[in-house]
Amino acid sequence: MRAALFNGPGEITVGDRPDPVIRDPTDAIVRVTLACVCGSDLWYYRGLSAHDLGAIGHEFIGVVDETGADVRDLRVGDFVVTPFTYSDGSCELCRAGWPSNCLNGGGYGNHGMDGGQGEAVRVPFADATLVKVPGSGHSDDALRSVLALSDVACTGHHAAVSGGVGPGMTVAVVGDGAVGLSAVLAAKRLGAERIIALSRNASRQAMAREFGATDIVAERGDEAVQAVREMTDGLGVEAALECVGTRESVNTAFAIARSGSVVGAVGAPHDVEVPIDVVIFRNVGLRGGIAPARRYIPELLPDVLEGRINPGRVFDFETDLDHVVDGYTAMDERRAIKSLIRVA
Amino acid sequence: MRAALFNGPGEITVGDRPDPVIRDPTDAIVRVTLACVCGSDLWYYRGLSAHDLGAIGHEFIGVVDETGADVRDLRVGDFVVTPFTYSDGSCELCRAGWPSNCLNGGGYGNHGMDGGQGEAVRVPFADATLVKVPGSGHSDDALRSVLALSDVACTGHHAAVSGGVGPGMTVAVVGDGAVGLSAVLAAKRLGAERIIALSRNASRQAMAREFGATDIVAERGDEAVQAVREMTDGLGVEAALECVGTRESVNTAFAIARSGSVVGAVGAPHDVEVPIDVVIFRNVGLRGGIAPARRYIPELLPDVLEGRINPGRVFDFETDLDHVVDGYTAMDERRAIKSLIRVA
Repeated sequence: MRAALFNGPGEITVGDRPDPVIRDPTDAIVRVTLACVCGSDLWYYRGLSAHDLGAIGHEFIGVVDETGADVRDLRVGDFVVTPFTYSDGSCELCRAGWPSNCLNGGGYGNHGMDGGQGEAVRVPFADATLVKVPGSGHSDDALRSVLALSDVACTGHHAAVSGGVGPGMTVAVVGDGAVGLSAVLAAKRLGAERIIALSRNASRQAMAREFGATDIVAERGDEAVQAVREMTDGLGVEAALECVGTRESVNTAFAIARSGSVVGAVGAPHDVEVPIDVVIFRNVGLRGGIAPARRYIPELLPDVLEGRINPGRVFDFETDLDHVVDGYTAMDERRAIKSLIRVA
Repeated sequence: MRAALFNGPGEITVGDRPDPVIRDPTDAIVRVTLACVCGSDLWYYRGLSAHDLGAIGHEFIGVVDETGADVRDLRVGDFVVTPFTYSDGSCELCRAGWPSNCLNGGGYGNHGMDGGQGEAVRVPFADATLVKVPGSGHSDDALRSVLALSDVACTGHHAAVSGGVGPGMTVAVVGDGAVGLSAVLAAKRLGAERIIALSRNASRQAMAREFGATDIVAERGDEAVQAVREMTDGLGVEAALECVGTRESVNTAFAIARSGSVVGAVGAPHDVEVPIDVVIFRNVGLRGGIAPARRYIPELLPDVLEGRINPGRVFDFETDLDHVVDGYTAMDERRAIKSLIRVA
């Protein structure tokens, strides 16, 4: 089969990989229709995080092509979305609601697993991992939004849930990438009344407003902190959502967080130093991490299919598998928020 | 009046200070009966945290001696306990449940305020700050436990609440000082089924067991982590309570915390580096800080007065005001868990 290949930082090509086959009776083979490029893929592309050579990509939707003997809930031909990690659904952490920390789980496109940016993927624990998408004849917009559930929409949702966002609250989102925008959408969906998006990019500001942002702060660093504090009677916001993962963004999130609130953090951390004095002396908590997408997808999918939310709007660049590298470069050069890859 | 005086690191004396007078109509003057020495006082004594010269101490109980014109709920002669900070009860943060972060609040024994280790204290916002202790003729044991509510018992409770401790849970407490022991007590009160206390000191192990610890881990650092993991099927505990505030103790708490759990942290931080990779990749949260004692005291006080909990058991050394320095040295030399000062 054809698949994207990571040959080292800055080197993404498309080549041949072995067709996936059922190895365990709980496996399924999914023929990928749509995939996309994650912000974390960019860290690999830029050489800032380690990645095995070979398959890459962990967000995809597609059609079940083959099932192992023990797969009960899925049939060949089912249309499915996968969370960005696979999970057994039965370990203690899965049962506690943390499938992305599954004791027997893992990720795609690394450690010998097929990548989502390819024609087909072997999915372990298929019944527990994959979510069947009901209905047929979905619009392209709907499909793009289902694809977004594979990671980015759930990750934004995790930021909002981790920050304790609820009805009537005043929330700020640090980061205007696809995850930050998804966090705006999630905060709106959870009932936040005022949503302050930190962004200095006109097109991202526009999308933030489309997703529910009521205010935009274009300043950065100390000036952004001052602006948000002035907008909130000096108190700061009731939930600060950290969607970047740098030292500056984390510090900004804590500085604008109201005493007693929780920073919802989902940015992959790079050189972060948590301001522990803010945690202890202002009672500002920190929750978040790799989203338990398998738990969230069933909750969010009906809203997507019925058009109440359109998280797929974050895809503002698209190409096909042969040109997958263009999806990376568009994001790397910040010409695109997030790149969609049409595979089949 | 006579009061303890902080003259610099290692130098605590007893001397004269001006008798407190009503300055604002919401003030009350409290004549102190019992006070105590906090672990944070030790940081000052050791020169590891800054403290103004003069009054010191922030935990006390006593009798209302005078009230300002606007004090409505308290009368001269009322027996009261104070949280370790004063708060106005009306600002947005107080109303949200965070009196220790009151916008107009502050602490005792610093910044020109009277200290709890003295004969009398001017208490601002007396109605909002002080909690009247009902009944009379309380036993000495009960009084000691009421005194503990001023800080240490509420701080231990805050660790447990912040860590999300609830019925049936498996909890570990890092730190066997008065706060750690209070956290054991709080975890037990909140229904934890298994409570692992990390302690290598025989008398503190005994008190931890008395407070509800079911298991003791005497190892430290990596060996302690390994021991706790082995006791929990490799998963770690459902809530790790951090009651020390050093880099090692914080790292230990995160290392033994189960994925998806929250570290409840109340140790005053010194050179702490939060392991952000654990936060993000294992979804381990961090909550805690300076306890909202004014919120907790009314909840805990009935349990104290009716003898269901005895947090005052942490006082294993006592002296009088003239010998307050002995209370410091006993704790500094780890001969005492916590020192009680009989003032009147």
